[in-house]
Amino acid sequence: MKSWVESANQSDSHFPIQNLPYGVFSVDGHAPRCGVALGEFVIDLSELEEAGLVSAGGSEHVFNQPALNEFMALGKPAWDQVRDRLVALFKADGDPALKENAALRDKAMVLQSRATMHLPFHVAEYTDFYAGRQHAFNVGTMFRGPENALPPNWLHIPIGYNGRASTVVVSGTDIARPLGQKKAPTDEMPRFGACERLDIELEMGAVVGLPSEMGRPISVQEADGMIFGYVLLNDWSARDIQAWEYQPLGPFQAKAFATSISPWVVTKAALEPFRTSTPPREKELLPYLREPGPMLYNIELEVLMQPEGADKPTRIAKTNYNNMYYSAAQQLAHHAVSGCKMSTGDLLGSGTVSGPEKTEYGSLLELTWGGKEPLELETGETRRFIEDGDTLTLTGWAQGDGYRIGFGECVGTIKPSPDFDPR
Amino acid sequence: MKSWVESANQSDSHFPIQNLPYGVFSVDGHAPRCGVALGEFVIDLSELEEAGLVSAGGSEHVFNQPALNEFMALGKPAWDQVRDRLVALFKADGDPALKENAALRDKAMVLQSRATMHLPFHVAEYTDFYAGRQHAFNVGTMFRGPENALPPNWLHIPIGYNGRASTVVVSGTDIARPLGQKKAPTDEMPRFGACERLDIELEMGAVVGLPSEMGRPISVQEADGMIFGYVLLNDWSARDIQAWEYQPLGPFQAKAFATSISPWVVTKAALEPFRTSTPPREKELLPYLREPGPMLYNIELEVLMQPEGADKPTRIAKTNYNNMYYSAAQQLAHHAVSGCKMSTGDLLGSGTVSGPEKTEYGSLLELTWGGKEPLELETGETRRFIEDGDTLTLTGWAQGDGYRIGFGECVGTIKPSPDFDPR
Repeated sequence: MKSWVESANQSDSHFPIQNLPYGVFSVDGHAPRCGVALGEFVIDLSELEEAGLVSAGGSEHVFNQPALNEFMALGKPAWDQVRDRLVALFKADGDPALKENAALRDKAMVLQSRATMHLPFHVAEYTDFYAGRQHAFNVGTMFRGPENALPPNWLHIPIGYNGRASTVVVSGTDIARPLGQKKAPTDEMPRFGACERLDIELEMGAVVGLPSEMGRPISVQEADGMIFGYVLLNDWSARDIQAWEYQPLGPFQAKAFATSISPWVVTKAALEPFRTSTPPREKELLPYLREPGPMLYNIELEVLMQPEGADKPTRIAKTNYNNMYYSAAQQLAHHAVSGCKMSTGDLLGSGTVSGPEKTEYGSLLELTWGGKEPLELETGETRRFIEDGDTLTLTGWAQGDGYRIGFGECVGTIKPSPDFDPR
Repeated sequence: MKSWVESANQSDSHFPIQNLPYGVFSVDGHAPRCGVALGEFVIDLSELEEAGLVSAGGSEHVFNQPALNEFMALGKPAWDQVRDRLVALFKADGDPALKENAALRDKAMVLQSRATMHLPFHVAEYTDFYAGRQHAFNVGTMFRGPENALPPNWLHIPIGYNGRASTVVVSGTDIARPLGQKKAPTDEMPRFGACERLDIELEMGAVVGLPSEMGRPISVQEADGMIFGYVLLNDWSARDIQAWEYQPLGPFQAKAFATSISPWVVTKAALEPFRTSTPPREKELLPYLREPGPMLYNIELEVLMQPEGADKPTRIAKTNYNNMYYSAAQQLAHHAVSGCKMSTGDLLGSGTVSGPEKTEYGSLLELTWGGKEPLELETGETRRFIEDGDTLTLTGWAQGDGYRIGFGECVGTIKPSPDFDPR
């Protein structure tokens, strides 16, 4: 399928007509509103809604807003209706209502290069999982040795913890190096200061569209139906702070300072042709966690690192989301099993996506094996962990036949710690 | 100080004129709005605001709303202005504007027995701490033995983890027994089913009024200034689910199914005469955590348990908030130290309040020592953990000279697990 928007038809575009991911953007300081990416454009959905060309079904307008939450809460009939309509309006031989209306095209089609992207939805709560088999094994090996690498519950439970929603930021937001308590095994007392082992975690984020009720568990099938779409997610991590704080109640300030996501939410509909099953089970799962069908996706993922002043980034990792042991639908079903209410706008981090090969690891902790094996960048510099001024970029796409369902980029640059004198 | 509202002057009233805690209520199915408790009444602040007798300072009305968040975000000048005005309107020899206006009194003074209480604020995010020295020691002893009871970081960090905000409910809400994965040490494989070791945790909750910025740490003094007030908090806990899931990333579904809070937020202003210092430090704290003055409070706390059909409750614990090793201000300063943004409506659980004596323990896990020493109730029944139909009530007050700053009650009744067939 081709579009009359030529830039959407290039085989390496992240945003062909098969994709149509949702985001929130603004131009020239005007109020943020909802849009979809198509080729080099953002399509202003509030303009199409206002012109009567697109409707989410209700009498209310849902796109002239700074967040996707209201649209996401409408569920699959509305999601399908808008997608079908956008395909009709933008395909090469479709409805000419927009194609032949130059005035409306001028208002509704904005070059992405002119748009400022915002957080695409209000993050209700953020939960981070730990579903990468290789990542759990790698980290467990470093902390406890290869025999005890995998915690005993790991093959039975999609292990997760509640993260911090208030610091989920959109790609492009600078990140200040966190301060905190650290204590090396050789230190007698903990010290206060800037993180010295700053890291990324390459993850996918699942975005909950439909809520569930408190006290009511959901099946994996229901959970899959509640998910609106997926984003790239970088779960920035302060490894030295984490090592000292995380026992017994889990990561806290080591992860709370920032989580970056891509500006575009790629819908489940666009990803449908790329569904794949989770890997074979090593232990049989309890029935409430069994997948009734393929619920993972084949999504190629890359991590790029670029020091300040360097003229190009170095690709430091390349992997695939299909490595994960648990799907987002399984994670969501587990999340609600106790009766925990899930909300529109909940964000579920997949856990670090690491493949079996060393070049497929999704964190510097793994890539440099705890800092012992520095990475060589193409600029000639080396890195154990992230330095001030470094820019980290995640990117990813599902590769179709002649087109890509792309996620764009999730970018963040590290800035020095703030001045802080607590006395 | 006395009020012309006689029921506020009884020495055992939780709601004298010195208190004036804030909540959200409705009557006869009308829209919820903000009020304060005084004696046997709820004072409808939206009516007083509408009549021009109370103002939070701005041009907008902030009390005709189903949540306190907007008022809490205004900060100390507004909090002080409204409190001073309410004292003037309700003290025995004060401003007669309301006392002598029968029509307005009829509209603005609602008997609490007629009011339905709602969640007093939108919970932005919920964080639960672990600041009770005796509780940490007790639980650590049960899991790891007395020599390794206290984790090595415990005396240096106010240990906390992110909880789940979507299931924070107001006192009086029934709680369904959670389902989940359990695995006893003797089980070969985990089992799925209803929690068999259901527990309470007696806590105080600190409510954040003023937000902080992402990337900016705050001092303990600043943190204290951001806190609007305190509630009673019951952090319901599924001990069997918790034991199997909590390593390595902390409690998740064992705590996510429900957290109950009292309907009244007692302000810091009302608690001011009851400030007290945290206990002596066993290890010197890093400067960013040192208290510049007393930031804990002397608050008496009780837990009552009443089986279904019993004609009276049994008091099963009596303790005091002044046992805590860390204050809420210290916890909040730690929470923001990495640059984590704190928001209006954030709720910080203190951690279980357990005193040194066995009758002062704030959970059944401790009171029955892991279920080994059942409690005898006044009805003759015994309890290891909570059974279906049991009602658990927390209550608390700061005892002044002839008056009490009361928190009312935080009540919850356990209902059977929902039917759930995942296939």
